[in-house]
Amino acid sequence: MTHHTSSLDMLWAPRSVAVVGASADPKKTGGRPVNYLLKHGFTGAIWPINPRVAELEGLTCYASVADLPGAPDVAIVLLGVDRAEAAVRDLAAKGCGLAIVLASGYAEAGPDGRNRQDGLRSAAGAMRLLGPNTIGAMDLTRGIVLSASGALEGDNLRKGGISVASQSGGILGALLSRGAARGIGFCKLASTGNEADIDIADLIAAYARDDATTVIAAYIEGIRSVEKFRSAANAARAAGKPLVVYKVGRSESGARAAVSHTGAMAGEDRTYDALFRQVGAIRAETFSDLLDIPAMLTSARKMRGKRVAILTSTGGAGSLVADNCGMLGLDVPMLDQKTGTVLAGLLGQDVPMTGNPVDVTLAGVEPSIMTAATEALLASEGIDGVVVVVGSSALARPDVAAGAIRAGAAQSDKPLIAYVSPNAPHIVELLNRDGVPAFAAPETCATVLKAALPAAPQGGALDMGGRVAVPDPLPTGPLNEAEARNLFDAFGLTGAASHVVHTPEEARQAAQKLGGPVVLKVLSREIAHKSDVGGVRVGLSAQDVGPAMSAMGQHLAAQNLPKPEGYLVQAMLGGGIEMILGFRHDPQLGPLVLLGAGGVQAELSGDSTLRLLPLSEGCARMMVEELRIKRLLEGYRGAPPHDIDALVAAIEAMARMGATLGARLQEAEINPLFVLPKGQGVAAADGLVVIAG
Amino acid sequence: MTHHTSSLDMLWAPRSVAVVGASADPKKTGGRPVNYLLKHGFTGAIWPINPRVAELEGLTCYASVADLPGAPDVAIVLLGVDRAEAAVRDLAAKGCGLAIVLASGYAEAGPDGRNRQDGLRSAAGAMRLLGPNTIGAMDLTRGIVLSASGALEGDNLRKGGISVASQSGGILGALLSRGAARGIGFCKLASTGNEADIDIADLIAAYARDDATTVIAAYIEGIRSVEKFRSAANAARAAGKPLVVYKVGRSESGARAAVSHTGAMAGEDRTYDALFRQVGAIRAETFSDLLDIPAMLTSARKMRGKRVAILTSTGGAGSLVADNCGMLGLDVPMLDQKTGTVLAGLLGQDVPMTGNPVDVTLAGVEPSIMTAATEALLASEGIDGVVVVVGSSALARPDVAAGAIRAGAAQSDKPLIAYVSPNAPHIVELLNRDGVPAFAAPETCATVLKAALPAAPQGGALDMGGRVAVPDPLPTGPLNEAEARNLFDAFGLTGAASHVVHTPEEARQAAQKLGGPVVLKVLSREIAHKSDVGGVRVGLSAQDVGPAMSAMGQHLAAQNLPKPEGYLVQAMLGGGIEMILGFRHDPQLGPLVLLGAGGVQAELSGDSTLRLLPLSEGCARMMVEELRIKRLLEGYRGAPPHDIDALVAAIEAMARMGATLGARLQEAEINPLFVLPKGQGVAAADGLVVIAG
Repeated sequence: MTHHTSSLDMLWAPRSVAVVGASADPKKTGGRPVNYLLKHGFTGAIWPINPRVAELEGLTCYASVADLPGAPDVAIVLLGVDRAEAAVRDLAAKGCGLAIVLASGYAEAGPDGRNRQDGLRSAAGAMRLLGPNTIGAMDLTRGIVLSASGALEGDNLRKGGISVASQSGGILGALLSRGAARGIGFCKLASTGNEADIDIADLIAAYARDDATTVIAAYIEGIRSVEKFRSAANAARAAGKPLVVYKVGRSESGARAAVSHTGAMAGEDRTYDALFRQVGAIRAETFSDLLDIPAMLTSARKMRGKRVAILTSTGGAGSLVADNCGMLGLDVPMLDQKTGTVLAGLLGQDVPMTGNPVDVTLAGVEPSIMTAATEALLASEGIDGVVVVVGSSALARPDVAAGAIRAGAAQSDKPLIAYVSPNAPHIVELLNRDGVPAFAAPETCATVLKAALPAAPQGGALDMGGRVAVPDPLPTGPLNEAEARNLFDAFGLTGAASHVVHTPEEARQAAQKLGGPVVLKVLSREIAHKSDVGGVRVGLSAQDVGPAMSAMGQHLAAQNLPKPEGYLVQAMLGGGIEMILGFRHDPQLGPLVLLGAGGVQAELSGDSTLRLLPLSEGCARMMVEELRIKRLLEGYRGAPPHDIDALVAAIEAMARMGATLGARLQEAEINPLFVLPKGQGVAAADGLVVIAG
Repeated sequence: MTHHTSSLDMLWAPRSVAVVGASADPKKTGGRPVNYLLKHGFTGAIWPINPRVAELEGLTCYASVADLPGAPDVAIVLLGVDRAEAAVRDLAAKGCGLAIVLASGYAEAGPDGRNRQDGLRSAAGAMRLLGPNTIGAMDLTRGIVLSASGALEGDNLRKGGISVASQSGGILGALLSRGAARGIGFCKLASTGNEADIDIADLIAAYARDDATTVIAAYIEGIRSVEKFRSAANAARAAGKPLVVYKVGRSESGARAAVSHTGAMAGEDRTYDALFRQVGAIRAETFSDLLDIPAMLTSARKMRGKRVAILTSTGGAGSLVADNCGMLGLDVPMLDQKTGTVLAGLLGQDVPMTGNPVDVTLAGVEPSIMTAATEALLASEGIDGVVVVVGSSALARPDVAAGAIRAGAAQSDKPLIAYVSPNAPHIVELLNRDGVPAFAAPETCATVLKAALPAAPQGGALDMGGRVAVPDPLPTGPLNEAEARNLFDAFGLTGAASHVVHTPEEARQAAQKLGGPVVLKVLSREIAHKSDVGGVRVGLSAQDVGPAMSAMGQHLAAQNLPKPEGYLVQAMLGGGIEMILGFRHDPQLGPLVLLGAGGVQAELSGDSTLRLLPLSEGCARMMVEELRIKRLLEGYRGAPPHDIDALVAAIEAMARMGATLGARLQEAEINPLFVLPKGQGVAAADGLVVIAG
């Protein structure tokens, strides 16, 4: 594959744009790009290319790429799949910086299409490529449209701080159309389509370094390079720009549809979830959230805590918003006396109004009262954000209602949003334009306020240091339990005391050394599920373990199982909480560690979490925090607390083992891992390791 | 409390309407009711009452209720809280059928308000009362508006089959406004406000018997009478009218807000969930669903199965819809060859197009192709419903696009809905008016298709027969375990074999009779948590049980605990799955049975479900089906199946015990209830019963 080193930033500031396949008819698709560039006042050179036309909208038209007066910064290729590759080759030869290929019929169209896409990419050489199967890009702040799509025509759009990266052109158009109707301002937008070169991560990185962008919204069907994505997301975070992502493919049907759409690769959705969490991206749960959360965050007002006040003239709508806030873990607390007294004064009441939602009934429609009440709530030390409900009384004088709300926000830097109860898209638009994020769904009000909470602090990178002496050479394939135990031991993942034995007498002696009842297990690389074939016996005394070993051997032989490498005599563990700690590779997103509650019931309850490598500081502890079993680990109902510190250390050790062995470690699992009472550590009671051959 | 016997149906067909406190100025609130009645062409008598005016909009105005020429069927009382009660008393005396009281300041305003509301209600006598704190009612099919609220003015509204019952007037207005903008047609609407008399259940019952109503939507803050609600919901189901409910109060903040709003009573939200499921009501999860699901169901097209086809000209939007369908458990399967061949023929492709979503790209905007492709998908035997994506290309000719979709639906009775991808409220409205439910959120498309699946069949009422000999007299307060066991036994809830003992020697003999290891428990009504005080010992042999009992007695005495009534020697159970089976009373919704997975981990996982009494046939089995632990009960990972039939019988026995003892049974719990391997039944290992004094 060709390595692209030049920046894609010229997409936003081209000095010259070539349009390959331009049509003289501005109503035809081929006529649109030149028309759009002219309409928005593009000040650079526009070079239409069409051998059958001499002039086009007053511009000189060129017969071929070779005839151009210079190397264009950007070229839009309007040709179909059969002619695009030649044009791309010509453009690259001419020294063009970046070509936008609109045609479809590439990777999304099956194996032949994939070959065509490879051809296109190699034709581009060092030239950057947006697409194929893209609808192009636009920069609203500079008024530059690089597209042949009506959806990006760009009339009557508001400039703002939200930049959008989308793998789908249709979705990009839908977001722009929906945002425009809502008075939401945009900065830069582009669709990456099949991502033969420029991918979603490139766009995010470009937005991260773009001064005009304040919030980044991304529509994702699949991530091609997790490293690039991680680095772009980290750059956005470092620049203080929230990254909001909507990813399809949460269900099998959706994943299949996405793959067939732009040929994106599917990974497991919960792994994406972990990735987004690890890079501090906010995941939009609904499609509407992908606009609504950025619309909120672009106001740059942050919730310092979870306490929300609701000001309403219609009780039902106040209940709706309050209920949804509570569902998402926000508080709608009673107001403090001071604030209640101010409100009572404003509304002519005798006693302090400490109820929340604050129901101002008819008085609330008086603009000055609305403004003063909003100010009072925002000024309260007990409140971190305010929702004002816009009722049907605002329909008569929407500008007055909107003005009153906006005025109330002026004295504070806390979030103020509006819930618009009747159908009133014009009020939503008015408020958004006025800088008051406004929403028509009560669920959304809660979602955006939650998104405005401070992001969880992200720890620095955890030392994944490889100063561990790994047994050399490592056997390959599935290791037997003793081999696995050696490897785990090397990384500090200690297990129950145990001895490898080969004769009944050795077994008896081992049990005697361990004292107390023991577990006897067959040792074999070829038996994956020891219990299923009778290869595990528990609670054996020293006198029973020898005969049990003989019987086990006979039982295994009777099943025609391969001769075991030996047996393991292990101290029985008790008093601990069973967990599962694992390591594996997501085919798309790479190595990850898994932590879950152990035992059959926990397995059914799905109480587990995962993180991609590399882990950061604090990440392992957060994994424990996310599990429901955490309460048990902490000491539930008077039970003693268990050794969470040791569990955290074990998670990090598993991650280090994965980082050190890299691709050689195909899979590892400790199941169960007993978390013992506080101060006593953890102990692996069984272990599985598969080493790549 | 006064007993109301007359029907509220006169609300929808009054022959005469009195307006108490009518104003001559139609712009004032007091002038609106007469204005609205006249505007919509009310053909009955209108009797305004205002002592300071002789004539009003050409109508004779009366000085007082007493002066009216007859008893009005309905009266709208516009007076404030200070004068409304007298007016209501006068109306009742005059023989008025139903009074609508708009004033607020009643139960929602604290204890004084509650007293005022009681006064209002007793002033009404046998006259029906809507409100107080209501915005009134309207019947769109007959054009009758009984309201002073601008939200119910009723201009430009579409008639349809959806009737709305709301406890909040503001919400009623918001629904009407939102629905009107979307082209959704309504039938009857009313808000019940504080429900001094007519409540949400009365409205649902009225809609159930109303010929013009096809779907009922209800906004609920709390249910006052569970019996009335159940009977109304059952009437709706019997009439084949889906009931869709949105209930606030899912979070603490929301519950508090709702209580302070209309003085509704809060019950536990998951109990409401059970109630709605038991009466076959569909619960709207989002506020938008409360309109969207009825808009879908009013088309009367039903999904026969879960297989959805998606027709799209924009791949991203197709993925969005497919993903959300998958998330809700619908299938988006590959198409059959026959359908694929038809599509390929339509779209000029060589090979059958069996992909789903069907991406028709640009060809799809050709109306005749869109219609034919829609027809082909609806005709497929492998497809139960179709979603057509409306892309930005439809913006140019919305009527043509809408017409093409509508035409495609004509040949089939399967559901056909539209997802409108760009911002295009006019297309949504057009499609809805054309009978094609149209939605702007991909999540909603999935939600409404799921709501169009056939309702789960509802079993007949389970025999709750009281032919059980209950120990008489029943002790009151908490029973000791032996007493509880007797009671459970009477209802067929058998426990582990056990004996009550009082001396160490009796204990030894009991253990010998039971054979195997036993459990020893203290028997005391005054010790709620036996384990916590050392009142339980497990795994005792016959020789150990006597000394253990003596030691236990001393240990309890040392804690100054009351002298126990005796001890229980119980056979130890093993090999079963631990469950919890309980009974209690929801303060608002009444008696219920609870079933959950047992043990500490399961408790943390919240794997439990409940049903209100009375149960219907099949209900107990559905409870088991809902639990994650069901997979364990069925035999997980090669483990043997357990006795689910016996568990179902135990649930029903617990329900019968609750039904038989009624309010006397405050609380009962069997924890753990062991579900033994199939054919071996269940066994209660501990039991708690509290009998009301």
